[in-house]
Amino acid sequence: MSWRGWGDPAQAAGLPESLQRLLRDALGVGAGRPAPESLSQVQLVPARLDRRIALELAGIVGADGVRGDDETRLRHAIGRSTPDLLALRAGAPIAAPDLVLAPDSHDQVMTLLARCSARRVAVVPFGGGTSVVGGVEPDAAAYGGVVALDLGRLAALERFDEESRLATLGPGLRGPEAERLLAERGYTLGHFPQSFEFATLGGFAATRSSGQASAGYGRFDELVMAMRVATPAGTLELGRAPKSAAGPDLRQLILGSEGAFGVITSLTMAVHPAPTARVYEGWRFASFSDGVRALRTLAQDGPRPTVLRLSDEVETALTLSRPDEIGGADNSAATPAGCVAIVGFEGGAEVVAQRRAEVAEVLAGHGAEPVPGAGDSWSEGRYRAPYLRDALLDAGALVETLETACFWSSLHELHAAVSSAVRDALTNQAPPTPPVILCHVSHVYPAGASLYFTVAAAQLPDPIAQWRRAKAAAGDAIAALGATITHHHGVGTDHVPWYEREIGELGVATLRAVKRTLDPADILNPGVLLSVESNVHNRSGGPR
Amino acid sequence: MSWRGWGDPAQAAGLPESLQRLLRDALGVGAGRPAPESLSQVQLVPARLDRRIALELAGIVGADGVRGDDETRLRHAIGRSTPDLLALRAGAPIAAPDLVLAPDSHDQVMTLLARCSARRVAVVPFGGGTSVVGGVEPDAAAYGGVVALDLGRLAALERFDEESRLATLGPGLRGPEAERLLAERGYTLGHFPQSFEFATLGGFAATRSSGQASAGYGRFDELVMAMRVATPAGTLELGRAPKSAAGPDLRQLILGSEGAFGVITSLTMAVHPAPTARVYEGWRFASFSDGVRALRTLAQDGPRPTVLRLSDEVETALTLSRPDEIGGADNSAATPAGCVAIVGFEGGAEVVAQRRAEVAEVLAGHGAEPVPGAGDSWSEGRYRAPYLRDALLDAGALVETLETACFWSSLHELHAAVSSAVRDALTNQAPPTPPVILCHVSHVYPAGASLYFTVAAAQLPDPIAQWRRAKAAAGDAIAALGATITHHHGVGTDHVPWYEREIGELGVATLRAVKRTLDPADILNPGVLLSVESNVHNRSGGPR
Repeated sequence: MSWRGWGDPAQAAGLPESLQRLLRDALGVGAGRPAPESLSQVQLVPARLDRRIALELAGIVGADGVRGDDETRLRHAIGRSTPDLLALRAGAPIAAPDLVLAPDSHDQVMTLLARCSARRVAVVPFGGGTSVVGGVEPDAAAYGGVVALDLGRLAALERFDEESRLATLGPGLRGPEAERLLAERGYTLGHFPQSFEFATLGGFAATRSSGQASAGYGRFDELVMAMRVATPAGTLELGRAPKSAAGPDLRQLILGSEGAFGVITSLTMAVHPAPTARVYEGWRFASFSDGVRALRTLAQDGPRPTVLRLSDEVETALTLSRPDEIGGADNSAATPAGCVAIVGFEGGAEVVAQRRAEVAEVLAGHGAEPVPGAGDSWSEGRYRAPYLRDALLDAGALVETLETACFWSSLHELHAAVSSAVRDALTNQAPPTPPVILCHVSHVYPAGASLYFTVAAAQLPDPIAQWRRAKAAAGDAIAALGATITHHHGVGTDHVPWYEREIGELGVATLRAVKRTLDPADILNPGVLLSVESNVHNRSGGPR
Repeated sequence: MSWRGWGDPAQAAGLPESLQRLLRDALGVGAGRPAPESLSQVQLVPARLDRRIALELAGIVGADGVRGDDETRLRHAIGRSTPDLLALRAGAPIAAPDLVLAPDSHDQVMTLLARCSARRVAVVPFGGGTSVVGGVEPDAAAYGGVVALDLGRLAALERFDEESRLATLGPGLRGPEAERLLAERGYTLGHFPQSFEFATLGGFAATRSSGQASAGYGRFDELVMAMRVATPAGTLELGRAPKSAAGPDLRQLILGSEGAFGVITSLTMAVHPAPTARVYEGWRFASFSDGVRALRTLAQDGPRPTVLRLSDEVETALTLSRPDEIGGADNSAATPAGCVAIVGFEGGAEVVAQRRAEVAEVLAGHGAEPVPGAGDSWSEGRYRAPYLRDALLDAGALVETLETACFWSSLHELHAAVSSAVRDALTNQAPPTPPVILCHVSHVYPAGASLYFTVAAAQLPDPIAQWRRAKAAAGDAIAALGATITHHHGVGTDHVPWYEREIGELGVATLRAVKRTLDPADILNPGVLLSVESNVHNRSGGPR
């Protein structure tokens, strides 16, 4: 992962002249502040961990497992939200972990957690570092230091139970490596979020990630059958059967805990036979409403495609995955309006062919028409958007995404309310920077769906504050409609205020009680998931 | 619900002479101790709630909502496990709630919980009273009294959102009444456990119930999209979307909490269009292994029937749902051996026909052959087994069921180990009572399945102690194999020791921390789900 932006530097995106012109003409985008070219341009907050403690922790993982150089610290310092990337450009000192430790066993994790608890050192469990919600940016002011716990050495296929279709995997495996290990045995996880190439299984679990093929393979949290969790208070071994009536499902307390309750050191995942056929198609609807109705029909009555998403009118018109076409020759006469859905099928050739035909009938029944090439184009560009964002930020555009989910009956209202809130926030300011707002339905369920927004505007001199205002307006609109503040990005630090409103005071008190039990010294990812209590370590119990 | 046994007294089962002969000849069943005929034969532990407190609580619900007579107390005193029914027969005084309160609103529940917290009165949330694991039998020795909180007046269809296919329902609705309300709108929950006719939605949720049609409609916990929960510490409103990445799924902390964390006062459930066609078939496999392989194939690769269960050889031979055929004319020559599966399809006529054909192909591919009439026979008898148990207990047989779940690769080992453990426990005692043990695969998932055992033997003079020994042996065998102590009956009081081993000390500490937060005075269902702490109300926090 590049330290200055997304992914593989060799794959960085350029901006075609046509798109640059569009940004200038339509959004008023001026000169940007590019990402730093060299590490020497980046200033880190100096490490402050006591040297004896550092040596003590290093002794646990051995020389191979410890790094404290600036490049390593920076690589574990921030996630990949737009504010993160803007912070790199802003030049202010960046808070980074004092030390990066890479344990190679559950026991080493346990020992590190015990030592850090005793020494009051904050611990950031670190997977791929792809958080877009501040998930690796703890509020550690009250601590003697911060260490990143890089799980990259816990990356084995520990066990494969073909009869039960279960694979026990290390949390440090990145998506492609996990898929390679499973493909050798003829299987797949089927989990392909946009961060697939760089994020890790532990991160997927800790943040309840959801992939682009969730309609077919399920969300990551639905695939987790068992797990081992290292916590400062001991080890949790959870999951003895696919489902159980033995009390609350404790797996669901760790899934989504974002490193604040413990460190997942092993995951037993449901796997699927690797598909032999893959087909992705585009279908154009006359309107977003028509498309939503068709997606809802498929989600509720089937047949369910493997991939199912629907862009609204604006996103359909501005296909960011094909930037060379944006703002090109005026082809509005040639291109019909409406909304394009991507519908994908994976599986055995026969099943794919049959389901494809059945789905085509449903889609056609809702007035949709095939869009030749759109499916392949989506498939080719499916992991490209973050590269394009880097280029857009460099060029002076403010570009970010946000997402939410609700029940079907609120979907259109939510779409309108979030769009209005973001538009108003970016317009009713001095100077106004009216945005373009794209949206798609990204995941569907029988009872509801998620909406994924992309916002682009001209950067103001303080683009981080500019975005925070727009994001807050979106969060308020989401909360007001009773939708969830995040469908698959997680809470991190960015969503904490809305999340705490969403689950209410008693929900927060419940999670704090869990945290006090599992992490009594309060060292794990402070400020992530839950706000830092002013009265840290108050152990009087009960809701506060 | 009959106070002396299962369900509707008019539907009580008789025991054909042939079955009585079989019990006597094969199991050595002698004379039984029948259930008491009249209430005057049942002795209740006297009520001990302070009269002023009783008046205070009665004032909250009003005269219509309070009862303290012996019949009402008895009807809220015990569940419907075999030990419960044997206790009725044994004649010893039965612990019963001092008072039965029926609130008619969430606010009344909140007020009652506040008052009971202040007065240190234990509260048993009460739905249908069908628990078979001691779920309504708290350990309330340390309290000033016990009240049952009967939720029967919270029984409305509060909201129906057809677009999202969501129904918001009161927790006090029994299965048939909920189905009637939904059928008027063309929908069904699709939740049909054996207790369907008498159990309530709140109970289904609090115990993670799973119905006979779970393969098609899902488990009850999977259908719960949102809920309102009254706790002594405040109200929880959970669920804003089908799925979310906003932290741990707190719904999953209340589901399975069995009244120990709070009282569910409203449930928003996913509903399905009511089926227009229903077909249930029997298929015979040469062996249990062949049948398990076929079920696993359907669970993993589809197509998935709505109902899918498989009896082992013994259960196939002794179809308890048709007692008049058991032990009748020797038809062993006419009846082939093997194992019978019940395969059911519900939905639109076309879908049912298509899926039925596809499934038949899979089953035939595993060597199965249709068993004419077996599906209808199962369907007619599907809610009858508890009636038959009453008659068997009256006749002197010890009859009880237990269930568990595991991943597929352990299923045969679990089947053998539980059978052996129960057989050994009932045989290696003086005098020996060698049992007959029936088993079926009752629910299937891609990664595993549940096993449901029925045990019958001759009663010893202390049949409760006799069963507890057998049940403990089964629990130990389940734990030793890493399976779960319950797939759909719940923890109650009976499973607590195995449950606490299953989730480990840290899991228990976590749940205790949650309970201290939601129920700081520790009044809710003490001893259910979690053992009563010797040091009740120790608030020092952290794991103990």
